[in-house]
Amino acid sequence: MPIVVTVTWEEGRACIRDRMQTVIRSRPAETVSLLEADGRVLAEDVPADRDYPAAARSVRDGFAVRSTDLPGTLKIVGEVRAGTKFDAAIGPGESVEIMTGAPVPAGADQIVMVEHAQRVNGGFSTGRPANMGEFINPQASEARAGETILATGKRLGFADIAWLATVGRSEASVYPLPRVAILATGDEIVDLAEVPLDTQIRNSNAYSLAVQVRRAGGIPEILPVAPDEIDETRRLIQRGLQSDLLLLSGGVSAGKYDLVEQVLADLGAEFFFDRVRVQPGQPLVFGKAQGTFFFGLPGNPASTMVTFEVFAQLALCLLGGEPHPALPLSFARLTQDFAHKPGLTRFLPAVLNCGDITPVAWKGSSDVPSIVKANAFLVADAARETWAAGDMIGVLPK
Amino acid sequence: MPIVVTVTWEEGRACIRDRMQTVIRSRPAETVSLLEADGRVLAEDVPADRDYPAAARSVRDGFAVRSTDLPGTLKIVGEVRAGTKFDAAIGPGESVEIMTGAPVPAGADQIVMVEHAQRVNGGFSTGRPANMGEFINPQASEARAGETILATGKRLGFADIAWLATVGRSEASVYPLPRVAILATGDEIVDLAEVPLDTQIRNSNAYSLAVQVRRAGGIPEILPVAPDEIDETRRLIQRGLQSDLLLLSGGVSAGKYDLVEQVLADLGAEFFFDRVRVQPGQPLVFGKAQGTFFFGLPGNPASTMVTFEVFAQLALCLLGGEPHPALPLSFARLTQDFAHKPGLTRFLPAVLNCGDITPVAWKGSSDVPSIVKANAFLVADAARETWAAGDMIGVLPK
Repeated sequence: MPIVVTVTWEEGRACIRDRMQTVIRSRPAETVSLLEADGRVLAEDVPADRDYPAAARSVRDGFAVRSTDLPGTLKIVGEVRAGTKFDAAIGPGESVEIMTGAPVPAGADQIVMVEHAQRVNGGFSTGRPANMGEFINPQASEARAGETILATGKRLGFADIAWLATVGRSEASVYPLPRVAILATGDEIVDLAEVPLDTQIRNSNAYSLAVQVRRAGGIPEILPVAPDEIDETRRLIQRGLQSDLLLLSGGVSAGKYDLVEQVLADLGAEFFFDRVRVQPGQPLVFGKAQGTFFFGLPGNPASTMVTFEVFAQLALCLLGGEPHPALPLSFARLTQDFAHKPGLTRFLPAVLNCGDITPVAWKGSSDVPSIVKANAFLVADAARETWAAGDMIGVLPK
Repeated sequence: MPIVVTVTWEEGRACIRDRMQTVIRSRPAETVSLLEADGRVLAEDVPADRDYPAAARSVRDGFAVRSTDLPGTLKIVGEVRAGTKFDAAIGPGESVEIMTGAPVPAGADQIVMVEHAQRVNGGFSTGRPANMGEFINPQASEARAGETILATGKRLGFADIAWLATVGRSEASVYPLPRVAILATGDEIVDLAEVPLDTQIRNSNAYSLAVQVRRAGGIPEILPVAPDEIDETRRLIQRGLQSDLLLLSGGVSAGKYDLVEQVLADLGAEFFFDRVRVQPGQPLVFGKAQGTFFFGLPGNPASTMVTFEVFAQLALCLLGGEPHPALPLSFARLTQDFAHKPGLTRFLPAVLNCGDITPVAWKGSSDVPSIVKANAFLVADAARETWAAGDMIGVLPK
């Protein structure tokens, strides 16, 4: 059995990062179509195919002018709209009517917004002062031809897909999705289709984990429930270790019927930590056996959900090819006083509404209905005891 | 042409909510499997099938005792683990060894954690004081049989899927996904496969919008680019109005070549607002034509992305059957001083890292590379001008 190594959530994440650093990027890439690339991790660098913008552009509807002519009355010698070009150069006292996105004519170095111009016969007058470059987006100001905008390891979202489209890419090279085996353990767990006795519960953890795995960019495989029996548990764990990552739920607390750690130890597992200063979720095991990383997540549903989000999700992102996945922690304003017992970082169900956060009453780590009512986790710092209404407190999206 | 109605982002969202309230929930539901229900909106109420927990459970490994016997030395008369039951009642001076999740034997009203017990011959001693109910989860404390835990209109996530599994549901009734037509407009926009002239750009907005639509629970359909020509623009808009929602990009600023509002007006459109006090994104139209709601999003890529997230995403959630979708606004701590010109709420690209936020340098509404570098939008309040390093500022996930 492993020596007990207790870590804070930050230490736990650092440990996962350090141990898994070597496994990322060793996997062959695959090519997918542009829209299918959403949420995938890029396996190539994507450069700008030309300067962006390709030529200086107006960012307003109005008039392209020589700034030295301002303020004053100018003659309109032509017009240019997005997609077209004004071929001549403008001279002193001249202007060209210009639309947003249109290339700035030669000679012009400022745009006067249409809202700041009064039309006069054959021209316009304005009180705007000279301000060279105003409302002009210079050539290559956003990206220079050849510059890498999207680099290997980027998890693609809507802006990245827009960039791929911008540079003319209809497909992208991405890392394969990691396969994740999910193994719930314990005699008290029955299959979804069964009617549980009062002493039993249905296997809900496997399904929430499957959803969490998918959302984190993995392909879940739910294994049959492992009973509290050593041979069958060993057989199922060995099967799970064929995947890229194994998630066990249950079987990792101090109870004498918790066989999982024993089976893992028998299989030659290394244990990197086996307790985290986090609630829900204290008994959490991270290790490696037969070349595959695994987590022993606590069996209570809330603990399973939270430890996945804070720890296992990071491992999955690393396996997926993201070199620096971050936890999307931010802050929200408490609508009421809040207190907890310091020493553990708590991730508790809460409702986030326009920057305000309200804790949801909850009955402990098995209380799924409370988490259903929440849309976020409030993150209570292990070093602080009390917060007053109006104070900022940590928040993690659910 | 519409009268100019300018709104703040809060007013704009309230307007969308008010106008669309009547259209939600009028659509027939469909049944999907449990894992496919992730991200979908529930079209039924899901009650607890029994009490949760079904019987009082221990939330620790330890000993079930009568609290009146504490502190003291107790005899161990049996054991009970999760999934089993201790059939007798315990008497004075007796205890039962109990595992996390196991039902509490009759007579017992407190659990002593194994860490707080010293084993003695045939029993254990503890210094723990009486604390009735400690480490016991009472029957029905999380949910009572028949109580609705998941209600119609809930967008399902991992905890909801866990709850469906808990109550034995292998499928769920959900609202259909709204179909969203996406129409980019403007002569300067060329197809992805073409090589644009210096005066042109590829159609990137349609692809970022398609990803945003999918992430918001819609089915995108990208229409061909509408040129600056009235008949073809009308034909494509009419086609788009056959969907549940039409998203136009470009063609809604003050420029004289912006035909889109004219065509919409000719089609009998009502316009509810056509300008928002938001940057990027000021020219934004929300209306309804031929029974279908539409947005005229600004053509610049950053404006399109931001106005989708802040406004169109809400409409899509409402169409999807969610009665009260919320913008996931929170706060983060600025790593540097920040200032903007008050009057507009700004949603600017930024990097969020463990609660700290750093603005990304950007060149204006066409600057996709800046948004690629960001993982969040900083939200600068329209009523405030300056923030110091260390101040909290609004943040919206990207």
